[in-house]
Amino acid sequence: MKNLIYTECSLRVRYAETDQMGVAYHGSYLVWFEVGRSEFCRQHGFSYQEMERNSGRFLVVATVQCRYLAPLRYDNEFVVRTRIKELRRRTVTFAYEVLDPQGEKVYAQGETTHVVTDREGKPKSLPEYYGKLLMESR
Amino acid sequence: MKNLIYTECSLRVRYAETDQMGVAYHGSYLVWFEVGRSEFCRQHGFSYQEMERNSGRFLVVATVQCRYLAPLRYDNEFVVRTRIKELRRRTVTFAYEVLDPQGEKVYAQGETTHVVTDREGKPKSLPEYYGKLLMESR
Amino acid sequence: MKNLIYTECSLRVRYAETDQMGVAYHGSYLVWFEVGRSEFCRQHGFSYQEMERNSGRFLVVATVQCRYLAPLRYDNEFVVRTRIKELRRRTVTFAYEVLDPQGEKVYAQGETTHVVTDREGKPKSLPEYYGKLLMESR
Amino acid sequence: MKNLIYTECSLRVRYAETDQMGVAYHGSYLVWFEVGRSEFCRQHGFSYQEMERNSGRFLVVATVQCRYLAPLRYDNEFVVRTRIKELRRRTVTFAYEVLDPQGEKVYAQGETTHVVTDREGKPKSLPEYYGKLLMESR
Repeated sequence: MKNLIYTECSLRVRYAETDQMGVAYHGSYLVWFEVGRSEFCRQHGFSYQEMERNSGRFLVVATVQCRYLAPLRYDNEFVVRTRIKELRRRTVTFAYEVLDPQGEKVYAQGETTHVVTDREGKPKSLPEYYGKLLMESR
Repeated sequence: MKNLIYTECSLRVRYAETDQMGVAYHGSYLVWFEVGRSEFCRQHGFSYQEMERNSGRFLVVATVQCRYLAPLRYDNEFVVRTRIKELRRRTVTFAYEVLDPQGEKVYAQGETTHVVTDREGKPKSLPEYYGKLLMESR
Repeated sequence: MKNLIYTECSLRVRYAETDQMGVAYHGSYLVWFEVGRSEFCRQHGFSYQEMERNSGRFLVVATVQCRYLAPLRYDNEFVVRTRIKELRRRTVTFAYEVLDPQGEKVYAQGETTHVVTDREGKPKSLPEYYGKLLMESR
Repeated sequence: MKNLIYTECSLRVRYAETDQMGVAYHGSYLVWFEVGRSEFCRQHGFSYQEMERNSGRFLVVATVQCRYLAPLRYDNEFVVRTRIKELRRRTVTFAYEVLDPQGEKVYAQGETTHVVTDREGKPKSLPEYYGKLLMESR
């Protein structure tokens, strides 16, 4: 199953997220991806928090990758565009783009793959209810 | 000079900002204060980034204090209310409240005092232009 | 009860901990205090982790304060000196100094007050066992 | 040019680095990689800080990837093993393993590729002096 539906959320680079090179620290992008992911869930009808609580299922990060194309600086506004690249029974892959507010310039591109687990870390299937919500166009 | 004018900005607790106690890590609040401060400047007609660049003046944090009154959890929405507590020739003190979106519950209160310096860290006066903007009601 | 016994741990400023001013971000110091606190516990015969698990008691941060006296830069080595300023039945106050490796220059001074709680956040007494360990000279 | 020489540095998971799942936040690993990189430089005879200052050359992160194999928890000790995977004229690729102190269990594996640039972000060659130091066995 592939999916081109994406959601967007708008952020600004925080002072804390810069480093002495004067640009956003490369690790900050992973946090922004996670904000994009939370927003993706919310715009698809559920909060990730609720899913953790109600279904006892967690999306544990199994792999992460990111390509940095242009630097972002303190106070720069940017958009995280998030979509699901692949949804399988026990894994979900999200893809991200970090863009300028006009959506013209790409600052970074990334992916995270998640394994669905229970509270003890055992692999489980994603509850159908959440799988459907994730794949719905809105 | 005292000032009761405040600005507000709305945020959500990021997953990265939680800790194993299941609540927002206490250090995260300092970052939110800084976001509140940036927003205060912006709503008063300038970006802090510009001030650093154009006037060569920096607001170096000299003291910080925070009282934690109630925990915030992942994905909770909250408001940072920021005001200037005191503006002197060479120091600025900001005061912050972290509130629920309705502004009824206080999660935390804090203050930061900043010394105005040049790029080399020498104490300087705050340029009058920025002092005026900071104290203006909007 | 006062106490002048302290422990020390040695750290270096990480690149991630710097900001665009070229110095350690002021929020990083709270994290270093926490590392100092963990080390204090360890050198007093227990791990904070164990205490959380075995006794179900947590040291929830209630207040934090820090004075910044001189900047630290990327890769600078420094020492966090930690002591208990006050131990009451339901609160513990730690005091910290961030020093150069020779212990001559003070970069920052701070304090954190903690309320002892159970897992649900209710105030509790600190188990005597841990209170004794904290106050022992080593 | 390939290289199997590695350096190691020993760290502990900080409370700030955990998240509400009770394990080290996945973004923390990038910071640990960076600590491993700094240590690699130091053990090869120079500080990364010095290189930035003396040669005006920066190692800007171009890509990052990480595979998470097992969770780390607060206060867990671990080792970051760092080596150079590839050194070209204008790029350097570091590879990392996050291991238990005995070097038996692998928690995570990752890579970062860096472009050598000047202060303005223009691609440059790595000064021969540093290239040699990086490739030397110690």
